[in-house]
Amino acid sequence: MEKKVKLAVIGCGQRGMALLHTLSALPDVEIIAVSDLYQDRMAEASERIYNTKGNRPLQIVDYEEVLKLDDLEVVIVSSSWENHIDVAIGAMKAKKTVGMEVGGVYTVEECWQLIRAYEETKTPFMFLENCCYDKQELMALRMVRDGLFGKVVHCSGAYGHDLREEVTGGAENRHYRLRNYLNRNAENYPTHELGPIAKILDINRGNRMLTLVSVSSKSFGMEAYVEERKETINSNLLGCDFAQGDIVTTIITCAGGETILLKLDTSLPRFYDRELVLRGTKGMYLTSPNIVFLDGVHPEEYWTGIENTEKLFNNATEYEDKYLPDFWKNITPEQRDLGHGGMDYFMMRAFIDAYKKGEEMPIDVYDAASWMVITVLSEESIALGGHPVTIPDFTRGKWLIRERKDVI
Amino acid sequence: MEKKVKLAVIGCGQRGMALLHTLSALPDVEIIAVSDLYQDRMAEASERIYNTKGNRPLQIVDYEEVLKLDDLEVVIVSSSWENHIDVAIGAMKAKKTVGMEVGGVYTVEECWQLIRAYEETKTPFMFLENCCYDKQELMALRMVRDGLFGKVVHCSGAYGHDLREEVTGGAENRHYRLRNYLNRNAENYPTHELGPIAKILDINRGNRMLTLVSVSSKSFGMEAYVEERKETINSNLLGCDFAQGDIVTTIITCAGGETILLKLDTSLPRFYDRELVLRGTKGMYLTSPNIVFLDGVHPEEYWTGIENTEKLFNNATEYEDKYLPDFWKNITPEQRDLGHGGMDYFMMRAFIDAYKKGEEMPIDVYDAASWMVITVLSEESIALGGHPVTIPDFTRGKWLIRERKDVI
Repeated sequence: MEKKVKLAVIGCGQRGMALLHTLSALPDVEIIAVSDLYQDRMAEASERIYNTKGNRPLQIVDYEEVLKLDDLEVVIVSSSWENHIDVAIGAMKAKKTVGMEVGGVYTVEECWQLIRAYEETKTPFMFLENCCYDKQELMALRMVRDGLFGKVVHCSGAYGHDLREEVTGGAENRHYRLRNYLNRNAENYPTHELGPIAKILDINRGNRMLTLVSVSSKSFGMEAYVEERKETINSNLLGCDFAQGDIVTTIITCAGGETILLKLDTSLPRFYDRELVLRGTKGMYLTSPNIVFLDGVHPEEYWTGIENTEKLFNNATEYEDKYLPDFWKNITPEQRDLGHGGMDYFMMRAFIDAYKKGEEMPIDVYDAASWMVITVLSEESIALGGHPVTIPDFTRGKWLIRERKDVI
Repeated sequence: MEKKVKLAVIGCGQRGMALLHTLSALPDVEIIAVSDLYQDRMAEASERIYNTKGNRPLQIVDYEEVLKLDDLEVVIVSSSWENHIDVAIGAMKAKKTVGMEVGGVYTVEECWQLIRAYEETKTPFMFLENCCYDKQELMALRMVRDGLFGKVVHCSGAYGHDLREEVTGGAENRHYRLRNYLNRNAENYPTHELGPIAKILDINRGNRMLTLVSVSSKSFGMEAYVEERKETINSNLLGCDFAQGDIVTTIITCAGGETILLKLDTSLPRFYDRELVLRGTKGMYLTSPNIVFLDGVHPEEYWTGIENTEKLFNNATEYEDKYLPDFWKNITPEQRDLGHGGMDYFMMRAFIDAYKKGEEMPIDVYDAASWMVITVLSEESIALGGHPVTIPDFTRGKWLIRERKDVI
């Protein structure tokens, strides 16, 4: 029988629990420990693991104790945003392979600490940016690699997700988002849209992000939401000033002359959408409403905005046969159910497979640092009235040498 | 018989000819003169006027001579971008009511000159921003005024129009866009999307634009376009460096805390779209794909980007009965044919009616200055690497006093 990968999950909040569900479907993984500051979360995690895998994991509050477990091989970091990097660095130093959940960072320095820990220990590290494995993002990547859009000039994306209930929810809110939304104003969650774009633009591998500007609207959404629910909402929130602006717009320039537009959009009513847009010299791809538009192929009629959209609506499905990866074509209902419609499973499988084969991680520590640093840089730019801020080169020049590494 | 308004058209290029077509349908307007630097354009304009109105207008190269015509009442300025303001100022000083075509400006100073000319002469002036009269923009305005979206927090829009053929076209290119695209890098055409947004946000009337940042991609689109057509294209363009970046992204902050995102997008393949988006505390409106989304009314399901878009696609038509102005509901095929699907007719009718009734112009000189100035300020910000630039208050404080004036 194949030896199972011995894994611990550090952080058993909403995201940690979801990843436990994903991991439950990996027969070659054994979850030997869980860690959280809250006993009730660990107990629930343990129960779930028992129900799905049949074993009872250790429950350890102090993650540093987890990292001392001799037989532990892999650590999943799904704790709060504020300590992702501390845990990841601790794990790398303990020679435990790291899969780190997404988020933003609070300082540039902690990114350098992460890089240093990796370069000193060479412990494998993967940034668990699941959206890099989603259907439209992988289609986009493969269409770009096939030259369908010519030279890619501009990309945009959003984290468009109404989080008003999540941020304010519960009588005893233990969500790290709340303290961030009350006290900070930043592009606080850039990687879902930036990750796939950065891969497409070969960031850290032949290209790099040079500068950004970031501008925020005022905060109106959260306060209106609280006010409308004042009879029922957690009373601590009544009259609170939220620092986080409703819409944060960030423009990044790249060494190759490309621009990347990011939008954080989480405290006004909307439907979920990452709004990925790719623009090239030969065509464009819009994920919502899922349009492929190619120069000389599709109709470019004047004054027909909505009519043209109607004609092309969802025509990108015609390109799936050629460009959608087989694992997405053959996705099973079980895989879909393992988190976010399938991408969590594909990401976790890729991570565990790379670990077992000793291969280079598809999304590495340089990707993590350069994507996450956008948060603190946008916070600085916003505070300075949209002043441009430079983006560090975490590869220290190696981006000129490093070769492309796509996630598939 | 009603006395006809005596009018001259200064500038008979593509846009001037189109406006002559619009004016041909106004029975209460007589075109007594046309002016252009090119004789062939004036001859063609005269022929068209003869065919539609039955009179032959004067053909005068020097617009200053046009302004001396005693019986002339109204001047339409549709010359090149570079001299819109000179002609408009000359006309105001000659006490001829001005309808000035859109474009951007080259200096802040010429905006102040325009304001000064108006304040000294009080000659009626209207900025002919036709998109303020288009269907979706008027729907948007009326939905906002009815409170459908709550407090409006963020608006975005684009000039998304593939102009590669127009800019490069012809063996002898006489289009003012070419010299601008070769030599400048700016948000060169902001008013089509900014105008309707500024009206919605009460800019210059209770609110004002404070700052902007503007960032440009490199120019790849034009050069790729020329290279692909090197056998047939105007040979002067071979190997030319275009200064104008393909995608220029500008973020404006307003005194009320709102942000406005503008995108100039004219040299890569795409279909025409102004991509108007309104975001408020109670809902949103997207003109493409024409979606109204209201908090608590429409489905906000997790992980259903494209499915949700499908459900809501073009649902804004359900709101037309309540919010579309009657003149759009009752539009005739003839009106549609008078330019840009009808909006040119509605705009021109509004302008001539305001003139005849001696009423305040729906889009005034302060609107013109503050919308057009975005071009030069974006040019400065781009040149400074995205540095924030302040936006002048052309009302000199009167925005705190001036009352709302919608276009309808």
